[in-house]
Amino acid sequence: MADPLKLGLAGIGTVGTGLVQLIAARADTLAARTGRPIEIVAVSARNRRKKRGADVSKMRFVSDPVALANDPEIDVFVELIGGEEGAAKEAVEAALQAGKHVVTANKALLAHHGPALAALAEKNGVALNFEGAVAGGIPVVKAMREGLQGNDITRVFGILNGTCNYILTKMEREGRDFADVLKEAQEQGYAEADPTFDVGGFDTAHKLSLLTSLAFGTRPGSTAVYVEGIETITPTDIEAATDLGYRIKLLGVALRTDSGIEQRVHPTMVPKDTAIANVDGVSNCVAIDGDFIGDVMLIGPGAGGGPTASAVMSDIIDIARGIVLRPFGVKATNLKAYKKAAMRTHEGGYYIRLSVYDRTGAFAAIAQRMAMQNISLESIVQRRPSDERPGQGKTPRKKGAPQASIVMVTHETTEAAVRKALAAIQKDGHVDSKPQMIRIEKL
Amino acid sequence: MADPLKLGLAGIGTVGTGLVQLIAARADTLAARTGRPIEIVAVSARNRRKKRGADVSKMRFVSDPVALANDPEIDVFVELIGGEEGAAKEAVEAALQAGKHVVTANKALLAHHGPALAALAEKNGVALNFEGAVAGGIPVVKAMREGLQGNDITRVFGILNGTCNYILTKMEREGRDFADVLKEAQEQGYAEADPTFDVGGFDTAHKLSLLTSLAFGTRPGSTAVYVEGIETITPTDIEAATDLGYRIKLLGVALRTDSGIEQRVHPTMVPKDTAIANVDGVSNCVAIDGDFIGDVMLIGPGAGGGPTASAVMSDIIDIARGIVLRPFGVKATNLKAYKKAAMRTHEGGYYIRLSVYDRTGAFAAIAQRMAMQNISLESIVQRRPSDERPGQGKTPRKKGAPQASIVMVTHETTEAAVRKALAAIQKDGHVDSKPQMIRIEKL
Repeated sequence: MADPLKLGLAGIGTVGTGLVQLIAARADTLAARTGRPIEIVAVSARNRRKKRGADVSKMRFVSDPVALANDPEIDVFVELIGGEEGAAKEAVEAALQAGKHVVTANKALLAHHGPALAALAEKNGVALNFEGAVAGGIPVVKAMREGLQGNDITRVFGILNGTCNYILTKMEREGRDFADVLKEAQEQGYAEADPTFDVGGFDTAHKLSLLTSLAFGTRPGSTAVYVEGIETITPTDIEAATDLGYRIKLLGVALRTDSGIEQRVHPTMVPKDTAIANVDGVSNCVAIDGDFIGDVMLIGPGAGGGPTASAVMSDIIDIARGIVLRPFGVKATNLKAYKKAAMRTHEGGYYIRLSVYDRTGAFAAIAQRMAMQNISLESIVQRRPSDERPGQGKTPRKKGAPQASIVMVTHETTEAAVRKALAAIQKDGHVDSKPQMIRIEKL
Repeated sequence: MADPLKLGLAGIGTVGTGLVQLIAARADTLAARTGRPIEIVAVSARNRRKKRGADVSKMRFVSDPVALANDPEIDVFVELIGGEEGAAKEAVEAALQAGKHVVTANKALLAHHGPALAALAEKNGVALNFEGAVAGGIPVVKAMREGLQGNDITRVFGILNGTCNYILTKMEREGRDFADVLKEAQEQGYAEADPTFDVGGFDTAHKLSLLTSLAFGTRPGSTAVYVEGIETITPTDIEAATDLGYRIKLLGVALRTDSGIEQRVHPTMVPKDTAIANVDGVSNCVAIDGDFIGDVMLIGPGAGGGPTASAVMSDIIDIARGIVLRPFGVKATNLKAYKKAAMRTHEGGYYIRLSVYDRTGAFAAIAQRMAMQNISLESIVQRRPSDERPGQGKTPRKKGAPQASIVMVTHETTEAAVRKALAAIQKDGHVDSKPQMIRIEKL
C-alpha cells in the first residue's frame, strides 16, 4: 500500500462535517479503492470548540487557513471556507503556490477567479478540483470535463438552486403564494433570512457561469448573465401553466448562438411530461446537449452536507489515484474570452399574462400590438381571477376595474419583439400592472 | 505536444462509424483537450469494401482483429465487434497481453468475462474501459467508478433498454397493444426481427449485471438475474396504471439486502410525477442511491452510433490523458462472489389484475386468499373491460363468462406471499387466465 494521502481541511461547516464523517466511516474502502489510505491530518476553523456532528478533536488544529495551506505535512488542501475573496482565496493561492493539490466547493471563488487559479494549478502541476461547487452531489463537473469531452456542446442548462425549486414545487402543490411559502421555507431552514441571493437567481447565475466555462471553454462571465428571480411568480401563473401543459422552473441556461453565448437565469416553462419538469423539491439537475451524445441530464441533490461531501470526496479520490487534470478541461490560458449574446436576440416562445381593464376594444388593441411586432400567438385565453372559481359564485364587478387575466402563448419570436409589444400595451393603458412574461424553453 | 495516441479499431458498424466521424470532425479539439493528437491508424472489419458513413480508405486495413490487437504500431485497441466469445474475446485478450489499452462497448463480453479480463489488464498495467457497454452515451461507468466512489451504494436501477421503453411509451400514448406496437417498431428499425433479447428483458439483465458489479464490488452475475419481459403488458394494465397515478417501465434493479443482492428485471410501476416515469421513447436512465449523496439519476440516449461513440471517445480521452484505473474500481481479484437474494424474499407493493368470472362470492374468495397471506390492500377496484367505456353503452353479459378485471394494489408485502395468494386464487377457479402481477418500485 502506498503512503497515505494527507489532507488539510479548512472550514468545518455542514460540508466539512460531512467530509469528516465520510472519511471516518469509509477508511478501509477508500484505501482499497484508491490504493492508499486517505487521512485528514489537520483542520482549520473559525471556532475550534464549536459542537459539530463529527469528532475533530484528534486532528491537529491550525487557526490560520493560510498556514494550513502551507503546512509541510499536507498533500491536499480542502477549502470549504467559502466566499470569493479573503481567507478562502488567500489560502487556495498559497496552497497552489506551495505545490499542493486543492479541492474546493467554493463556486464564488471559481466564478470570479477560476482562470487565474487554474493557471496557477497548471503551472505547479497540481489539481484544482471543484466538483462540489456546482449542483452539490451531482457529478457534473466530471461528466463535462471528462465524460462528454468528445462532444461539441451547444447548450447546458438546469435547475441549480434547491431553495427556488422547493418554493416553486410547494406553490404548485399547495396553491399558495410566493411570500407565504418563502416564509415557511425560512422557518424550516430551506431559505436564508435574506433570501435574495437564492430567490433572485444570483446563486443560479454563479453556478451557471462555471457550467458555461466547462461547456464552451470560455472564461467565466458571471456578470454577463441575464438574471430574473422567482419573486413575481403567482399562483395564477402556476395554474395557467398547468392548464397549458407546463410547469414553471427557475432555470439557468447557457446557449451557444451565432452572435455569442446567451447566459440567462429566469423562471421558465417546461412541458409537464418531461423529466426536468418532474425534478421537484430541493433536487437539482443539469442537462447538456452535445452533438454526438444528444441530450443528457443528471439529477440529484444540489446541496447539503452529505451530497456535497460525496462530491468533494470524489475530487480527493481522483488525486489519490494520481489523476490530475486541467481544472477547466483545457489549458487555463487558452480559455477564450466570454462573448455575450444580447438578451434581446433571444429566440423562443413566451407566456404572457396581462391584468386587463375590462374596456371595449382592450382585447383587440392588445392583439394588434402583438401583430405589429410580428408575434403570432399559439393561444390566447381570458382567465378568471384565481380567487373566482367556477361554481363559487361571482364577485361583483366594477366597470373599469381590473377584471381578468389574459394569458397568451406566443410561437417562437424574439425577446426584442416581445418587449416592444409589452411596452406598447402598457403605454396604451389597458393593463393595470406590469405584464408577466415567462420564457418557454425548447426541450 | 506529446506523441500521437494511436488507435486500432476493430468493427466498423454503427458505433465504429460514429467514432471515425467523431475523431475526423474533432482532431484539433481532442488534441487541445488531451495534450496529444488521437489517430486511428488501422482498422479491421469483416467486409473491407462495405459502404459506410465514414471514410476509412486511408487507414491501414488488417483483416484479422487478433493481428490488429497485436499490431506494434497501436497503443489502444478499440473493440466494437461484439459478442461474448470468438473474435472479440480473443482480440481483447491478445491486446491486453501485448500491453495495449483496450476500449470496448461489448456488454456481453464484460458481463461474462469481466473479472478475468480486468485482472489481465491490471497485471499488464493497462486500461480496460467500457463506458459504451452500459446505457450507451450516458457517462454512468465514470460516475460510478469515479464520481460516486465515496459512497456506499444500496441500490442501482434504471431503464436500460430503449426498445422496451419505446414500445411502452407508444402503447401508453396511443392506447395500442404490445404486438401491434412491436410490429411497427420492427418496421421502423427500433426493434430486431427476433425481439426476444430486448423485449424479454435479457439485454437489460446483461447491462444490469455490470452496474451491479460497479455498485457492489461483486463479480458480474448475469445468470443470477430474475427476468420478466414486457410481452404480457396490456393496454388495460397501462390504463389502470394511469388511473392509479403510475407509469409502467421495464426496470433493471439491483438492491443490496440482508440476505444478498436482489437483481431483477421486470415491468415496474413508478409514480407518474417522477423524473424516471417521464424518461420516454428510446431514452435510458440509471438511478443510483448512495449513503452520502442520496439519490442521483442520469438520463440520456441508451444506444445509437453517435451517443455510444461519445462514450467510447471518453474512454479513449482518459487514456490519452494518462488515466488508467482498475476496470471495476477495485482490484479485479478482490471482486467479491455474487451472493444472490432469493426473489421470493423481495419486498414491495404489487399491482395485481385478475380477469374474474362473474360469480357470487368470487370477489370475497379473492379477498380472503389475500388476507390469508397477510397481504393488506391499498385499493381494490373492479374495472370495466377496456373496450367498454362509460357512455358507450354496455355489451350484453353472459352469466359465467369473464366479465371484469379486478385491479388490486397491495401495501408492502413479499413476493412469496403474493405468489402463494395468486396460486390459490387460480386454483379456486374464479379467474379465467393467469393473473397479471406488476411490482411497484419504491422511489
